[in-house]
Amino acid sequence: MQSLKSRGRARESAAVATAGDNDAHAGTLQRSIRQRLIDAIAAGVYPAGRRLPSSRKLARQLGVARNTVVIVYQQLVAEGHLIARERSGFYVNEEVAKRRLRVDRVGGPAAPQPVTEWDHRFRRRTRVSDTWRYPPDWQKFPFPFIEGRFDRSLFPVTEWREATRLALGLREIEQWSIDSGEADDPFLIEQIRTKVLPRRGITARPDEILITLGTRQALDLVTELFVDQTTPVAMEAPGNPAMHDLLAAQLAPIIYQPVDEDGIVVDSRLDTARLVYVTPSHQRPTAATLSVARRRALLDLATSRDFVILEDDFECETNYLDDAFPALRSMPGGERVLYVGALSRVLAPGLRLGFLVAAPEVVSEARRLRALVTRHPPLNNQRTAALFLSLGHYDTTVLRLGRIFRERLIALRDALNHYRPQSIAISPVRGGTTYWVRGPEGIDARDLARQAEARGVLIEPVGHYYTDSSGPTNVFRMGITGIPIEHIRDGVAALADVIREMSGGETLPAEERDQRWLGGVALRRKLSGATLLYKTVYGDPCTIELHEDGRMIGRAGYANEDRDSGRWWIEGDLWCRQWEEWAYGEVSRLRTRIDGDRIRWYRAEGPFVGRLVDSAVYVSPRKSNLDQQVT
Amino acid sequence: MQSLKSRGRARESAAVATAGDNDAHAGTLQRSIRQRLIDAIAAGVYPAGRRLPSSRKLARQLGVARNTVVIVYQQLVAEGHLIARERSGFYVNEEVAKRRLRVDRVGGPAAPQPVTEWDHRFRRRTRVSDTWRYPPDWQKFPFPFIEGRFDRSLFPVTEWREATRLALGLREIEQWSIDSGEADDPFLIEQIRTKVLPRRGITARPDEILITLGTRQALDLVTELFVDQTTPVAMEAPGNPAMHDLLAAQLAPIIYQPVDEDGIVVDSRLDTARLVYVTPSHQRPTAATLSVARRRALLDLATSRDFVILEDDFECETNYLDDAFPALRSMPGGERVLYVGALSRVLAPGLRLGFLVAAPEVVSEARRLRALVTRHPPLNNQRTAALFLSLGHYDTTVLRLGRIFRERLIALRDALNHYRPQSIAISPVRGGTTYWVRGPEGIDARDLARQAEARGVLIEPVGHYYTDSSGPTNVFRMGITGIPIEHIRDGVAALADVIREMSGGETLPAEERDQRWLGGVALRRKLSGATLLYKTVYGDPCTIELHEDGRMIGRAGYANEDRDSGRWWIEGDLWCRQWEEWAYGEVSRLRTRIDGDRIRWYRAEGPFVGRLVDSAVYVSPRKSNLDQQVT
Repeated sequence: MQSLKSRGRARESAAVATAGDNDAHAGTLQRSIRQRLIDAIAAGVYPAGRRLPSSRKLARQLGVARNTVVIVYQQLVAEGHLIARERSGFYVNEEVAKRRLRVDRVGGPAAPQPVTEWDHRFRRRTRVSDTWRYPPDWQKFPFPFIEGRFDRSLFPVTEWREATRLALGLREIEQWSIDSGEADDPFLIEQIRTKVLPRRGITARPDEILITLGTRQALDLVTELFVDQTTPVAMEAPGNPAMHDLLAAQLAPIIYQPVDEDGIVVDSRLDTARLVYVTPSHQRPTAATLSVARRRALLDLATSRDFVILEDDFECETNYLDDAFPALRSMPGGERVLYVGALSRVLAPGLRLGFLVAAPEVVSEARRLRALVTRHPPLNNQRTAALFLSLGHYDTTVLRLGRIFRERLIALRDALNHYRPQSIAISPVRGGTTYWVRGPEGIDARDLARQAEARGVLIEPVGHYYTDSSGPTNVFRMGITGIPIEHIRDGVAALADVIREMSGGETLPAEERDQRWLGGVALRRKLSGATLLYKTVYGDPCTIELHEDGRMIGRAGYANEDRDSGRWWIEGDLWCRQWEEWAYGEVSRLRTRIDGDRIRWYRAEGPFVGRLVDSAVYVSPRKSNLDQQVT
Repeated sequence: MQSLKSRGRARESAAVATAGDNDAHAGTLQRSIRQRLIDAIAAGVYPAGRRLPSSRKLARQLGVARNTVVIVYQQLVAEGHLIARERSGFYVNEEVAKRRLRVDRVGGPAAPQPVTEWDHRFRRRTRVSDTWRYPPDWQKFPFPFIEGRFDRSLFPVTEWREATRLALGLREIEQWSIDSGEADDPFLIEQIRTKVLPRRGITARPDEILITLGTRQALDLVTELFVDQTTPVAMEAPGNPAMHDLLAAQLAPIIYQPVDEDGIVVDSRLDTARLVYVTPSHQRPTAATLSVARRRALLDLATSRDFVILEDDFECETNYLDDAFPALRSMPGGERVLYVGALSRVLAPGLRLGFLVAAPEVVSEARRLRALVTRHPPLNNQRTAALFLSLGHYDTTVLRLGRIFRERLIALRDALNHYRPQSIAISPVRGGTTYWVRGPEGIDARDLARQAEARGVLIEPVGHYYTDSSGPTNVFRMGITGIPIEHIRDGVAALADVIREMSGGETLPAEERDQRWLGGVALRRKLSGATLLYKTVYGDPCTIELHEDGRMIGRAGYANEDRDSGRWWIEGDLWCRQWEEWAYGEVSRLRTRIDGDRIRWYRAEGPFVGRLVDSAVYVSPRKSNLDQQVT
């Protein structure tokens, strides 16, 4: 029943009519209406000087209390967006609107056609390498086995809110709102000095600490300061691609030093280096921990050959599987170590808070350079992080994350052990958040990653950690920082399915193909009373006793600390087993053969025999009985 | 009446006994007690496993309610710092304490003696220039005429708090806590695109915008991308020293292009440049505004000579003295402009939020480079700034700051006009926040700055804006972003005192020394009915009529829009005057001489004649009477 005359206004009101909807950026109805009105003014729906609909009318059209609209109008008047005129209503403040419109008219939009030849103008000597890119919406994938991307559920929401609220105090704002020149927040320096560095064994004076935008800026500053085309620099191979790009941009001669299960190899190839870049806690990307002996050797070599060590401890807070090894910087000879760390694992990578610990001369020079290229990391975040630390939230968050990461990493290990036995190529011993996993020979990890992505599984091929094509093509990384524990097993199972499909029939080696499987009768005879000796995927010994009555006892670990029991039986020519807890308590039905002292199981699928599932040392019933008598 | 036995505990309680004091980082008593306890645990006052004093006892010793202590203890238990044991009390959680102590023992502090030879290890080809440094505690000085440092009272506290609270919503945290890879917050991009850039006349697509750590990172990225030793780059002289350092680090051939009152001179010296760096809104450091004709000429030259323009609009929001000129980027031909801006004037420099607007190809390349050196600016700040903008606080803050800066700049102009007439060397016409001020010939601005600092006055010598010694030694800059308006006049007066003292007797030029001052009788005869013609310090004409009855009428401005009246009289041989409002309504007593059509006044101090205070065109009573008859 709307009159023609009121139609114009009705259209305007429609511009804010969705204000009652759920708005992603406003908590309350008032805020929502307010924002819509401002957007409508900005978009010119209400031009400068235009009278807004009466509060009564807008309230009716939005279906909200009139008072809600009145409050919003009054707020907008107080802020200068609107002007209230006695007995007339609310008008768009011409002064606010004019400023924008005026420039709009004078300038006009830039011509749309591009200047196409930008490429030939770029003068940078080296391009930034393409890196492996996860889909930007990785959080929507059910099985994101990716590394370093943060599961948002891990963020210490309550504690961060508390620290933020404190940092919004007037006295706090007075301190962080100003441009400090080169200085960092002394309060944050003090907190890192007393609450973070002692966990790594590091003692530092305030002038030995520089706050950086994550570890990345610290690496950039150090490279820029210490490296040119006359400075040989050693880095791990495989290694951090960002470091490679930073060194390449300086035209530095790069020494690629191999990595094994104990981390970077320390030998005479490092002799000519002026700087050695290492990731000791969990080598990037293999997650191997640098052994204490290697640490000592590296420091001794640095002293005798007079080179500087750049220690990147980007995961300094995830040494949870065992006691942390002390940082190189904390050991005798550590004066020549430039230590780089971050709060990213505890305080979310989005905040970009890292730090450099080094001699005062180095920090001073890095500070000047930082001032030139970015000035300082945002001071409000520095102060908020300092308050977070001072309230003791750091220790508790580290503990909590350590517990979660440990559980997740064990879950991943167990799942790989079950679905892809023997596939973990390097087993981190001090925590970390990734596994270096080997796929079947001949499979290309990049193809695998693409096909797995289609099933919701994200993994990382490792080619970009090698500077040439020397890297293994069938290796990939699986990380646990971004995946909830309850998704890990299903994710590994789905990945195993993809691998099986890609491998096709996964044909047997020729020498195995001609051999016959054990039939039911022979199976029962050979296995009743036998003992099987394994190594678990994480290197521990494991013994399984198969009793004649169908009971099955398993003991794993050097002190048999992990035990389980189960049943075994024969169905036709298949050997069947089921543990109480191990292997998720599932029934396995397997074809079996025994060659000398090896027993091998194959998946029984369809008419053809599937791939090798597992193998063990076979100790025959007679021998194992003898052993038992001896014991 | 303390027993020996309880002494140990009493000492421990003393560790938190100051908890009731005013604590700079905690709002409430609870938080304060909590923090002290955590610090005491960290410091080992309460070692791992130690029982804490009972809540009753600690409450008594701190003089607080027992419940306060109980709540703190329970909170610490919930967070894992303490463990509660039934009927026994609260104990320090060994797990938390152990982790820190364990590493402490293993590592040990780094050896104290420094590796002294760091200097010879630095490989950077150019050092970062020394810049003029204000004292770090500049906010404590009564008269900080400094530039770019933010008066903390200007920060939009309430509005920023509102935006921060919204950014702490769970859904918001989920978005900003993760590492986004290379991406910026799309919400902030959209807000800059629709609310900030239109004010400068700029239309941009989302892929044409990159968020940077202030303007500084944008300049660094552009330099790194576009410049090497084969790329001639032109910059203003005097100019931004940071840009000089960035260019020098790339070994770029630099063309120093002069600046006058219309900004950078556009002529054939720019022909060979591949990149031209300009600060059009308010030239850094002179504050001159690039005229529209020069803008057009620069863009035309860029097109015909095919160079790229880097437009640094670091003060994009302080064009308040008149309508803003549109940005170069917004004008026809602007496709080859790389536009750099910041929210630092509105959102506090401490937050470090800037942006680059350029062709998508350039933004894409700069984004890769940014990812390598710092990844992305902190996402929590990006989201908070986006919310701030979306709530409409940007427009109103710009308006408020414009009003404040305008008042301050006019107050500075008036004070300089009064205490140091004719000293403003370049007068910005479109706002800005600084004046380029000339001291007496022969005075060294660096000496002046040092001596003024001792009186609480901070000014900036300009030598570091010149790459060689070609700059004027007696020029300095005075800024108003950091000084309250009520301090401006006293600050200029104090500075004028310092200048007078440094100039000593400020001897007269020889040709003036031999001349005699007008005595009382001659003075009255010459001045009764005379007219004096000035130019004000800001270039407007000003007429003063001296009536015979001692009245004095002043009119300034092209339309005489500024008027005042006052009195003049003779005391002995001194000419005295007092305005109602002009010259702060103060009495001036001056020695006077007239040479032809010039009248000059000198300060009358002690037995000797002081320095020249002011001069004007003198129109004699007879002539001015004639003029009046003619009119």
